[in-house]
Parts: sequence; structure tokens; C-alpha cells
Amino acid sequence: MSSSIGKNYTVDVFGESHSAAIGVVIGGVPAGTEIDRGRINAFLERRRPSAGVHSTARRETDEIEILSGVLDGRATGAPLAAIIRNADTRSSDYGLLKSVMRPSHSDYAASVKYGGYNDYRGGGQFSGRLTAPLCIAGSIALDLLQKRGIEVTAYLAAIGSVHAPSYKEYGAKVADILTETKREELRLSALPFLDASYTKAAEDEIKAARSAGDSVGGIIECVVTGLPVGVGEPLYDSLEGVLSKVLFSIPAVKGVEFGSGFNIAEMRGSVANDRMYFESGAVKTRTNHNGGITGGISNGMPVTFRVAVKPVPSIAIEQDTVDIAAKKDTKLAIGGRHDACIAPRAVPVIEAAAACVLYDLM
Amino acid sequence: MSSSIGKNYTVDVFGESHSAAIGVVIGGVPAGTEIDRGRINAFLERRRPSAGVHSTARRETDEIEILSGVLDGRATGAPLAAIIRNADTRSSDYGLLKSVMRPSHSDYAASVKYGGYNDYRGGGQFSGRLTAPLCIAGSIALDLLQKRGIEVTAYLAAIGSVHAPSYKEYGAKVADILTETKREELRLSALPFLDASYTKAAEDEIKAARSAGDSVGGIIECVVTGLPVGVGEPLYDSLEGVLSKVLFSIPAVKGVEFGSGFNIAEMRGSVANDRMYFESGAVKTRTNHNGGITGGISNGMPVTFRVAVKPVPSIAIEQDTVDIAAKKDTKLAIGGRHDACIAPRAVPVIEAAAACVLYDLM
Amino acid sequence: MSSSIGKNYTVDVFGESHSAAIGVVIGGVPAGTEIDRGRINAFLERRRPSAGVHSTARRETDEIEILSGVLDGRATGAPLAAIIRNADTRSSDYGLLKSVMRPSHSDYAASVKYGGYNDYRGGGQFSGRLTAPLCIAGSIALDLLQKRGIEVTAYLAAIGSVHAPSYKEYGAKVADILTETKREELRLSALPFLDASYTKAAEDEIKAARSAGDSVGGIIECVVTGLPVGVGEPLYDSLEGVLSKVLFSIPAVKGVEFGSGFNIAEMRGSVANDRMYFESGAVKTRTNHNGGITGGISNGMPVTFRVAVKPVPSIAIEQDTVDIAAKKDTKLAIGGRHDACIAPRAVPVIEAAAACVLYDLM
Amino acid sequence: MSSSIGKNYTVDVFGESHSAAIGVVIGGVPAGTEIDRGRINAFLERRRPSAGVHSTARRETDEIEILSGVLDGRATGAPLAAIIRNADTRSSDYGLLKSVMRPSHSDYAASVKYGGYNDYRGGGQFSGRLTAPLCIAGSIALDLLQKRGIEVTAYLAAIGSVHAPSYKEYGAKVADILTETKREELRLSALPFLDASYTKAAEDEIKAARSAGDSVGGIIECVVTGLPVGVGEPLYDSLEGVLSKVLFSIPAVKGVEFGSGFNIAEMRGSVANDRMYFESGAVKTRTNHNGGITGGISNGMPVTFRVAVKPVPSIAIEQDTVDIAAKKDTKLAIGGRHDACIAPRAVPVIEAAAACVLYDLM
Repeated sequence: MSSSIGKNYTVDVFGESHSAAIGVVIGGVPAGTEIDRGRINAFLERRRPSAGVHSTARRETDEIEILSGVLDGRATGAPLAAIIRNADTRSSDYGLLKSVMRPSHSDYAASVKYGGYNDYRGGGQFSGRLTAPLCIAGSIALDLLQKRGIEVTAYLAAIGSVHAPSYKEYGAKVADILTETKREELRLSALPFLDASYTKAAEDEIKAARSAGDSVGGIIECVVTGLPVGVGEPLYDSLEGVLSKVLFSIPAVKGVEFGSGFNIAEMRGSVANDRMYFESGAVKTRTNHNGGITGGISNGMPVTFRVAVKPVPSIAIEQDTVDIAAKKDTKLAIGGRHDACIAPRAVPVIEAAAACVLYDLM
Repeated sequence: MSSSIGKNYTVDVFGESHSAAIGVVIGGVPAGTEIDRGRINAFLERRRPSAGVHSTARRETDEIEILSGVLDGRATGAPLAAIIRNADTRSSDYGLLKSVMRPSHSDYAASVKYGGYNDYRGGGQFSGRLTAPLCIAGSIALDLLQKRGIEVTAYLAAIGSVHAPSYKEYGAKVADILTETKREELRLSALPFLDASYTKAAEDEIKAARSAGDSVGGIIECVVTGLPVGVGEPLYDSLEGVLSKVLFSIPAVKGVEFGSGFNIAEMRGSVANDRMYFESGAVKTRTNHNGGITGGISNGMPVTFRVAVKPVPSIAIEQDTVDIAAKKDTKLAIGGRHDACIAPRAVPVIEAAAACVLYDLM
Repeated sequence: MSSSIGKNYTVDVFGESHSAAIGVVIGGVPAGTEIDRGRINAFLERRRPSAGVHSTARRETDEIEILSGVLDGRATGAPLAAIIRNADTRSSDYGLLKSVMRPSHSDYAASVKYGGYNDYRGGGQFSGRLTAPLCIAGSIALDLLQKRGIEVTAYLAAIGSVHAPSYKEYGAKVADILTETKREELRLSALPFLDASYTKAAEDEIKAARSAGDSVGGIIECVVTGLPVGVGEPLYDSLEGVLSKVLFSIPAVKGVEFGSGFNIAEMRGSVANDRMYFESGAVKTRTNHNGGITGGISNGMPVTFRVAVKPVPSIAIEQDTVDIAAKKDTKLAIGGRHDACIAPRAVPVIEAAAACVLYDLM
Repeated sequence: MSSSIGKNYTVDVFGESHSAAIGVVIGGVPAGTEIDRGRINAFLERRRPSAGVHSTARRETDEIEILSGVLDGRATGAPLAAIIRNADTRSSDYGLLKSVMRPSHSDYAASVKYGGYNDYRGGGQFSGRLTAPLCIAGSIALDLLQKRGIEVTAYLAAIGSVHAPSYKEYGAKVADILTETKREELRLSALPFLDASYTKAAEDEIKAARSAGDSVGGIIECVVTGLPVGVGEPLYDSLEGVLSKVLFSIPAVKGVEFGSGFNIAEMRGSVANDRMYFESGAVKTRTNHNGGITGGISNGMPVTFRVAVKPVPSIAIEQDTVDIAAKKDTKLAIGGRHDACIAPRAVPVIEAAAACVLYDLM
């Protein structure tokens, strides 16, 4: 099922930006698991536009309704279905866009694939809005992981040209930085950097792009601590493989690297190899260029990865594009409500995606 | 099945570096397809060590035996099973390695996961040797794609510090460079760069590493031309997602990016957006920052991606590591036969992996 | 995903008898397919209790709400999600049943499996009510099949001791009997037998059981005409295998046979073998003991199968059972609203299940 | 993958009757499991033709070669691949059969499906011979189940018109009959009936059919004891559904029923309902009409099912059939080596199939 993730903890997402509702069917929630709508809502709150930073004016109240799978606040073992109604959808904003393609959006590819029957309003099923149901599943998975001592923490590493220190600098010790206090601080921040001093510059970068009717990309990092050794299934359900498959399915993601990623290609083996040692009976490595994964399975070090997020393609600046009905070139300046930078809102989505995959593999 | 790829063109790989044989079971080869063992062998020849460049002395004759699924040179429609016997396996080289872990190899993670029962000789199922059966499946898929006008071409973009021009420089016009002559030249080269003038420097880089008992990484690029619009299935079988899942399961791959990948994170939308236009009735884009994929599905432009390959972890230089039987720190200098750089031999593997995925999705 | 059917036409069902809603997420509906809520409702109407025959007093209005995947009456290509609200659920009827197990129901097995957290009200996800979402998916599949000239027709072959003539008697000519007029007659009948003269006796059988506070089982037959040769995938996605998997997942089904089924075990090969001949260029068989399937794939003859439906386990007669909270034996007489025979209402469900499977395989 | 079974214990079968080899790739064998080739061979011995009973003259030595996944007699955790070479294949026997279809065989359906490229020799992949690799996987699964106290026992319930007492007669007490002594007796018998006094009549039935150049069918029963409560995954991976899917993929199986199966359709609920009671703290039922499965999941009682096996379609008696090359009717008398009754040899195959499914679900 191409709309779903997982084998044991299964997540099947549905909906379109302007359909009656979006939602998710989750299988594999252990019977008896406490399902706290408040916690799920708090998690979803993190992916909502934040007044100070984001420009999108669409109010996504994202009121969750649980349709099945929960009785008296606990999972019944049956599929947990939940929906979010699509209110406040100004479809009229999109009238024109049935034939005029938004550059770097799914519009053209989707129109060809679905013979023009795709729901073009707001990008249909390709909308970033479909990450909200994923966050419902992710929120539950994060709780289940946390009970096993596993923490999944994503944060910003770059916004446009503003690059903050990465786990690559912190090396194998990044887990020491990610104290519970730091994680809470990151969760509450509209622009969560490991080093909060980068927030101001990032905010300026976003504001500058917005003022110019433009947008800007960013890089998100994610660190998973507490994962036991041995998660991931060779050959083709490798931990990197399964994670990347879901990560690349999040709108705007164009690159994924684990550990030192593309930098490792320039290293010699004597540098890239993570030297091993015993510490209090546990096997550890001095460096963590492999990002906690060797042979496609977790090795006990923090799992670290980075995700490149492209600038939002919806910009106010006029662009060259095509009108596929008229079969001719045209121009387009996109009005309506759009974020100038999606990366901050994608941070919890990365956590949710990673949590769904990790819980599924365990 | 974690050892398999695909839904319609299914590839199930088995074997270990020192087991009796390695092999593959391929489902979904259309009945009647010509299966030419010579062509498959020629393809596998490309991933064999080449005297000038590679150091591994293990002679992999890789004689393919087809066990089923072919009658009178044509696919019968039943699963096509093929094996390669593991001859010339000097298991004695590996005696020590049951308890002394090779840093940055799968050894430790696998030993924990499988309770010490994993075949530790030569990395067992984690060995790069398991890419040979994948290449059998890939060779057949490449032929099937070629009949539909689709070409998959991988080549080297970097070896260690030697960076050759990338498709990122060539932009949307990379397809024009990849003429049939150029592709044939790349296929025949032991160090295939788009610009052959980088071969010498790359060779020197590898030789220098080898002389130092060390190894070096590299970057491989891949360009797919002729792919129709609409390949990839939202939400979670996105073209990027499904490709990356398999790519990350190839040993030593630590990063995957599509189009401009991590660079796009620094761009503004007005730059990153690929401006659209009509050319002879077809919709094209001026740039190709999205690597031919928008909304997770192909958009008609060349599909372009890059893969970071880490340096071979087996090096002659002595390294810190652990002895898990003795539960103490130790040192290890790895003898035996090893490549100083695996990236050149991974080039056809990338093509094979991409071909299996693409044919499966079509 | 254990709550779903299919690879290409995927059907993921959720909900519980007394949850807020039940529903379905359908993938693989071709973009542009007309989705007519009226037709779906008409189909669902067939599985509703019918005053003359059924005793269940629960009014299932089964108002369908389509949440996504349809725009302007046509499928968009995105997952089609639809729900039915659970109104009129008298949960108080079920208070006792958390610890007193209903014999031959899922209660005990489910309670152990889910640690007592399962939704015990009305059987939770095991309720026959969950066949309603399957019927939504089936209704769409039936339409898609019909456009290709494929008809799926189920009817009653037996109610309790009343056995009507079977396709086994009609042999290879059953398709000639199933004219469009006959099919429409069957669709409109509360007790659809091929030979309508059996209706009265069947009705009496049901009434007698009900008067006694008891229930009775039945046999349903299904005939598929127009299916092309070659549907079914060896070895393990055989047409019989894939159909039976879904059929056995319909509550109360305890037996499935194709063609002559269990009778064929008594035959000699010379009788059981369906003699082949050409008729107007098409290959046909004189008999159809194989039920249109040989080697697990369709052979062009009508696909015929029979399904045994057990008597509804909810009966008013007092039964021996256990109280798992008190850990002691007890007695139970089940009040509330229950059918005395579920077989008639299962007829459209069998059609729906078969249609989903067949369309998926094509 | 249509050639495979299972999600956790995966079984991927390949080969054709006259290909170089047949084989299996098994995933999910726990690392460290003892793999005893002698035990596997002993199991396969049970499905070999037995001189007294069977007529097939083809000597299937079925020498197993393990290609991967085993080191020093224990599973490594990597896929376990094993093959059996096809020796003694008299392909010349089959020359004619490329265009003359054997009635009730897969020949015609396969020829259409695969455009005539299918391996028609000996039925190709549709041959009963492909059950040998399934038996390899089944033998390992049976051992793994036995370690958990689960026994899977199949035996003959009928050969042609000879019907022996069924578990239906023995009711919930069938487990008491199946002592280890009885099971061993069944394993060693060429015609294993619960009541050995039926062996003679069955043998006569088979001999009579053979003398007439004909064949005869049979019924196999299977009883699973020791299965814990809760095996099976609603809604669509029900225990009945998943078992039946594999059972129907065994050549010649045309019917599957659980517990009282088709007989239950005639019962009233007050009879069919299995009355529950406590015995030494365990919940049991007085009868077992549901065959140990309620709501699609195991309920702690013995799992019982029956399988109808059709007579071998290859008979010496001349039959009407078609020549698809000449496009005309013709006659066919099948020479060569064929069993007059396949049911006895299918007994261990049923055990193997059930074991693979049950171990996978646990």
C-alpha cells in the first residue's frame, strides 16, 4: 500500500489539502497503550505556523477526532483511526491552478499521472498538510519509544546561509548535549537550534526572504539516543534505507545523510573509521562518522542524520511556467498564504517519521 | 521480506561472503524476455576488481548459474533463480575476526543482533559481494528499461578530495552529454568520470591511500533519461523514497541526494524553482534542481542523484578496537585482500539498484 | 497490514461495532473513475436487515461520508477514505459481556490476545458490522469489473437443512442461467436462491429457529463470469488462495470450496477432469469441476465457489459459558438484537470481497 | 512477492519441474537454530513415492544442498537458501505437451498467461514437485514450533469413497488420540489414517484406480495442538484466512474447511456453539465445531481443518482435449510416470504449509 508505512506499526495516511478531512489509520498500537489526545495535540501544535516566524495565515486548528481503536483512553488493539477536518480552506485561491502549473510543485507530474483528475487545490495529497496525520502516528510512537528509553530529537542545523554547529562537530558526544532540559527548550522554540544564539540570524534570513516575496530552505538534524544494538533488517530493510524512504516522502526533502554523510566521501578510512572501546562494559566508539549505523543496523551509538529541505516553491515573485490547458508558456505569481520557510515546521515531522520507522522495526 | 526489493519486479538476494553460494530469486520478469547470460556476465564484469585500480586479490570469477525461470534463452514467467558459487574463499584469513571487531564494519552490530551466530567470515551477508546477485537482477532490469528508451547511467563524481564536475554544473542539459558514445566510454572505464581528465588524479588518490595502508571514499552520480512523467507512488512510495531505500542498503553508502540536494537548502525559492516552458510540445524546465522529481514522482526531466560512499573500513593501518570475547580493548591491523576504494566498483551496482527500482515502479 | 487487503487495489478497514465510526481507506481507484454515492448506498442496502426475514432491530442507516479521494464525483487517484458513523449503539446491552464470554464468538480469544483492552461492546472489530466498509470498497470494485464485462454474483445455496440446487448441478452452464434479469432478481430478493421456489422453505427454517430463540447457518455460492484467462499469481497468490484468505476473514465463514470442492475428493480423474474443446475459437470445458481455476489461475470458465456460514452464535437460549473475571463457569442467554440467520446478509459481502480480490489481481 | 509466504518467517520458492534445480530462500530463521539436514531429509522422505502405494517411477532423490544461512550446523540469521537438483528428468516424455493441453492441469491457463513461454515440461512451476522446497521450510518450522510445545499432525481422512472417522467424530478430544506414539505411527505409514484399519481399503481403492488407468482423490485432515490463544491478526490476516491461502496454493487442493466446516451450515446455533467451561484454570469448550478458531484467532482448543484433494489429472485413459497450436479438438492419453493418488504424498506438505504459516504468525 503506497500510502502506508511499516509492517508492524503501520501508518496509512489519507486526505487532500481541501478534501473533507485528512486522517490516518494506525495498526499495531499495543492494546492498553494510553492514548492522550492532549499529548497528541501538543505535538501537532509544534508543526503549526507560529506567528513570529511563519507567514502562512491559514489557521489550522487541527482538531483531532479519534474514530476507532480507543476505549476509555486506552488502545483496544484494533486499528486506531483519527481524522482532522479541513476547515478554513479557501479553495477559490486555487481556481487558476488547474491548468497553470506552479514550478517545482507536484502540479505538473500529478496532472499527467492522474489524467487531470487529481485534486489540484492546495496540492491535493501532495500538500505538506498531509504530514499532520503522520504526526498523530508519530506522537504515539514517540511515547512508546520513550517508555523504552529512546529519545528522538530533531532541530534546525541551517536556514538558508545560516549554518549552526552540527552533530558533526559535537561528534559522539552529541547525546550529552541533548539533556532533557535542552530537548524541552528545542520543543518550545519556533526556531530550534542546538545553539540558540543562531535563532536571530535565522529569523532575519526568513524575514528577508519573505520581504522579497521569496522563500528559503534549511537543514534539519535528528539524533536518536537509547536505541539498542541491532535495529534494522538486512539486506534491504536497513535502518538507513527504511528511515530514508519515509524521510524522502516528506514534501520538500531532497537529501538525506547519516553520520558524516557526504563528508565521509572525502575522508580516508583511518579517519572515517570509528575507533571502538569499552566503557563500563559497553562497546562505544570515539567518533560517530557512521551515525550509529553499521551494516545497516544500529550499533549502540546515537543515530544521527541530516535532511535537506528545499525552499517553499510557492513564492510571490513572478515566475516562468506553463499553462497545460492552453499549451503555452505563461507567468505566475503565487498569492495566498504560504510559509517563507517550511524547515522549522518540518522539525516535528522528522521526529514523527523517524519514530514511526523505529518503533515499527523494534 | 527484508532481503527483497520490489512489488512487481521482485529481487530476493541470499548468501554470505563465504557460504557455498550467493544468489538471487527474481520475480516479475515478463515471460518471453530474452535472458542473455553473456550480457549479464558483461555487466557483472564491471563490478569486478580491475588490476590497474583495485587492490583486492580475491579472484571473483562470478560464474553465473541459472537454476530456473529460463527455457531456451527466454524467461518462462516463473521466478528466475541464479547463483554464483563462492570459490577461492580463504576463510582462514578471518579466523581472528569472530571476536575482534573490525571498526566501522557490521561486525559488532551483527554479532549482537544474531547472538554471535552470524557468519563473521568476510562480513557474512553484509559483504559487498552480495551486490553481485543484485547486479544480475539489475542487468535484466536495465535491458527491460532500455527497450522502453530509458537509460540509467552512473559514474564517479569524486574520489577522496578529487571532485570532478557534477550534473549540478551541467544542469538540465546533462542528458545531452550522456550520448551513447559517452555512456559506452563510461562503461569501459575503470575510473569512469564524465570528464575523463579527472581519472589520473583519482587514480593517484587511490594509490596514495593504498600505499599508506589506508583507503578513501568517493561520490557516485547517476542520471536516468527517458523516464516517463508519473513514476512514483504517493505518499510513501515516492520515487526518491523507494530509490533511496535500496541505495542506502548498498554497503558503504552514507548519503543520498536528488538534484541539487543539500545545496538546495541554501537557495532561495526564486533560484531553486525550476522554471517551466514548452519545447516542441513537451513541458521542460530550464534548471533541474529537483532532479527530475517533484511531489515524489518523475516530472519528465532527467532523474539525477548522488550517493556518498565511505572509505573501505578494512585498512592495514593498526586501529583501536575491541575483543568482545575477552571483553577488552585491543588493536587490529587488517591483512587480507581489500580494495583501497570501493567507489569505482560500486558504480554498476548503483545502476543495477536504480534499474530494479525503476522497472518495479513502472 | 493485517487490516488490509490487496496490493494494487488496497482496502484498509477500521472501526469497531460501537466506536465513533467505521470506515475504509481505498487505494488504487483509477483517477477519473465515477464514484456514485447512490450506487454505493444501494449496494450497502442489500446487507441491511430486511423486515420480513431478519430479526435484528438495530437500525443501521449506514450513511456514508466520503472524506477524501473524490472531487466533482470522480476519483482523484489519492486514497479514497469513507466513513459510516455508528449511531444507535445501545452499549448498555453489552455491559455484562466484558467478563462473561459469548460461546463461539471472538470474545474469549480477543480478551486474551488484547489483555482485556479490546472493545468488547458488540464484538468490537470482530463485529459483522465491519463488513459494511468492505462493501463500500466492493461496490466500487464491482463497478470497475463490470466495465470490463466481469460479473460477480452470489446467492444462497442452503439455509439450514434447506438445500437448493447448486452450480454443481448446473455445471459449466451456470452462466447461462445467470442472465441480467436473474441477477437483478437475486439482488432484490431478501432470500436470493437461484431457484426462487426455495425461498419459502428457507424463510420457514429461519422463523422456526428464531421462535426457538435459536439461529441457523447457510451456504452461499458465488459465480464469476467474464474473467479473462490468467488471473492469479503462482505460487502463493493463487486465485483460490487469495480469494479464500478474504472469504475466511468474513465473520462466520468456516468453509470454502471451489468448483466441486469436497465432492471432487471422491471422484476418479476420468470424471473430475474437465474435458476440453473449442467453441467458436475459444477453449471451453464440458464440465467445470475445477471451478474455473486450474494451477491457481483462471482458465476462462466461470469461477465458482461455495462458502459455509455458521449459525449466528448470539442466541436467546441459555448456554454454558465462563466468567473470566470470576474465573468460574456460568450461564448466558443473549438478549439484544440479533439475526437468526446471517447468511442472507452475507451474500453481498461475498460479492464485495470477491470483487476486491479480483480487481486487485487484474 | 507472489512466490513467497509470510512476513516474519518468509518462504520464497523457485524452480520448475525440469529446470536445473528447485529451491527455497527462507528468511526469519532465528540465528542459532540447529539446522539438521538429516531431519529435513527424513521429512522430505515422507512426500516421496512409496513403492507399495504410489505408481510414479520418477526417482526423486531430492538431495538437499544448503547454499547459505547455516554455519557449523546453526542458522546464521541470514536468509537460508537450499536447492534440490532436478536429476532424472525425462523431458522427452513431455515433447507433445507444448500444444496439447492436459485437461484439469495448469497447461492451458499457463500457456495463455505466459504467452506460450511457460516451461510446459512436467507442469513447470505448477508441478507438485515445487512442494519439496516448501517442505524444507516446513520441516524447520515444525521443529521451531515443537520447541514451543506445538504439534502439527496431518493424516488421511478419505481416499476416494473410503471415509475414515474424522476429527469431527472425535470432537474436542482428538488431541487425546494424537499421542506421540500415534503421531509417529502416522509419520511412518504410507497411508496414514487415524484408524489404521482403513489402510487396506484405501490401498485397494488406489490400486483399482491405477489398474483402470485412472486416479482418485482424497481428504486430508490436520490437527494442531498446543497453539496458544491469540494467534491470527484481524481483520484480514485471520488464522483461517492465512492458512487457507497457502493450503489452496498446494496443487490439487479444491476445498478447505475449519472445524465442522460445511456441516456447521446445517446446524442450529444451540448445537454449533461450543459450550465453554473451566478445567484446571484453563478455558475449554465441550465441542470444537469452530476448529479452535473464533474471530479469526486461535482460542486454545485444537486447531482442526480438512483439505479436499482432487484426483491426479494425469491419467492413462484417453481424454478429450484441445491442441492450441492446431486450434482443434484432439484426444490425449497421458503416459509417463504418475501417481494414481496424490493425497498420501500431500500429507506432509499440509503439515509443512501449516507450520510455515503458524510459525510466521507467532
